[in-house]
Amino acid sequence: MILYTVPGSCAFASHIALEMAGADYEVRLAPRAGGRTAESFFEINPKGRVPALVTAEGVLTETPAILYYIAQTHSQAGLAPMENPWLFARLQSFCAYLCATVHVAHAHGHRGYRWADNDASFEDMTNKVSQNMGECFSLIESEMLAGPWVLGDKFSIADIYLLAIARWLEADKVDTSQLVNVLDHRARMLQLAEVQSVLAQEQKILTQKA
Amino acid sequence: MILYTVPGSCAFASHIALEMAGADYEVRLAPRAGGRTAESFFEINPKGRVPALVTAEGVLTETPAILYYIAQTHSQAGLAPMENPWLFARLQSFCAYLCATVHVAHAHGHRGYRWADNDASFEDMTNKVSQNMGECFSLIESEMLAGPWVLGDKFSIADIYLLAIARWLEADKVDTSQLVNVLDHRARMLQLAEVQSVLAQEQKILTQKA
Repeated sequence: MILYTVPGSCAFASHIALEMAGADYEVRLAPRAGGRTAESFFEINPKGRVPALVTAEGVLTETPAILYYIAQTHSQAGLAPMENPWLFARLQSFCAYLCATVHVAHAHGHRGYRWADNDASFEDMTNKVSQNMGECFSLIESEMLAGPWVLGDKFSIADIYLLAIARWLEADKVDTSQLVNVLDHRARMLQLAEVQSVLAQEQKILTQKA
Repeated sequence: MILYTVPGSCAFASHIALEMAGADYEVRLAPRAGGRTAESFFEINPKGRVPALVTAEGVLTETPAILYYIAQTHSQAGLAPMENPWLFARLQSFCAYLCATVHVAHAHGHRGYRWADNDASFEDMTNKVSQNMGECFSLIESEMLAGPWVLGDKFSIADIYLLAIARWLEADKVDTSQLVNVLDHRARMLQLAEVQSVLAQEQKILTQKA
């Protein structure tokens, strides 16, 4: 499998999942031009976004789908409780919240052109990111992060995905002083050998690019 | 189970899935105040959004999660190919695109206050909805709707979810002249007895409200 990524993006989650699953994969930098995805990448992913996972069966996009696919095809790694409908539902709900609400809140900081045309609107959106991300993470802190992992005792791809988004907290100027559980979770995730390996691979990709 | 809904919203999808699964359920209008969710509803769903499905195990939110949960707990209805990793991955990818990109594009028409503070920004966002929804549905038309159903021959919750979002095309002023497959899919979905039943239930809910 080939994972197309951009260091620092949410593709970080798919990269860690591949590493934790012990998958046979290669990672490549998605071609960029002027801070956006290059036109050539649209031939691989018509959406022009990362992550995109090239598999023997076709190209798969969207982080939740890629994470479940890796978990399901490498079930020995135990990354998703697919046999337990309620636990799986909570996993799905968490991932859907991250992709449809939290990531979207973050994206308004630098990608306002997706939803508006005027510079004043972009500035207005950027100014609200800190508040929105803060509210999202307050909800995660108080209601959604069961502890020690997202689903409780059971580690899963939800933890991997949360790390990828929680990496953005400081850049989004979120006041993290009340996010005790979120920061503890992030610190424990960052200590994992597979996460350290992926961070090193990201550095290598950035060096090759330069 | 109790489904909290607002007629016309994306909760339509969860409602149809319950009906098609032959589930034992009751549907209730989420309490509203001034065009938004009433404070009392936050006790049921801290996110303050529909759909919310009250189950014996807890409250479940987020459309993709609710749809899979209904499919998995009513497997005799055959609404999700969970045993086939690639087909399931395509299903997941489609649902993630609808919730994180297409629904979000639509929401900028009337919910700009989620991501900005100024009236001029709201107007700017509203003006871009037709273009964005048009681009999303062009991609669905050309790349994602295998036909006759989203996954090909296999009907699934992806078809149900697509109907719920495709209901908004005219209100979002999308030029549907090139969306031949999407409109055909929508027309076939609307003919299903379970969909007709849910539409009738939505009318009843609105009448009770008035």
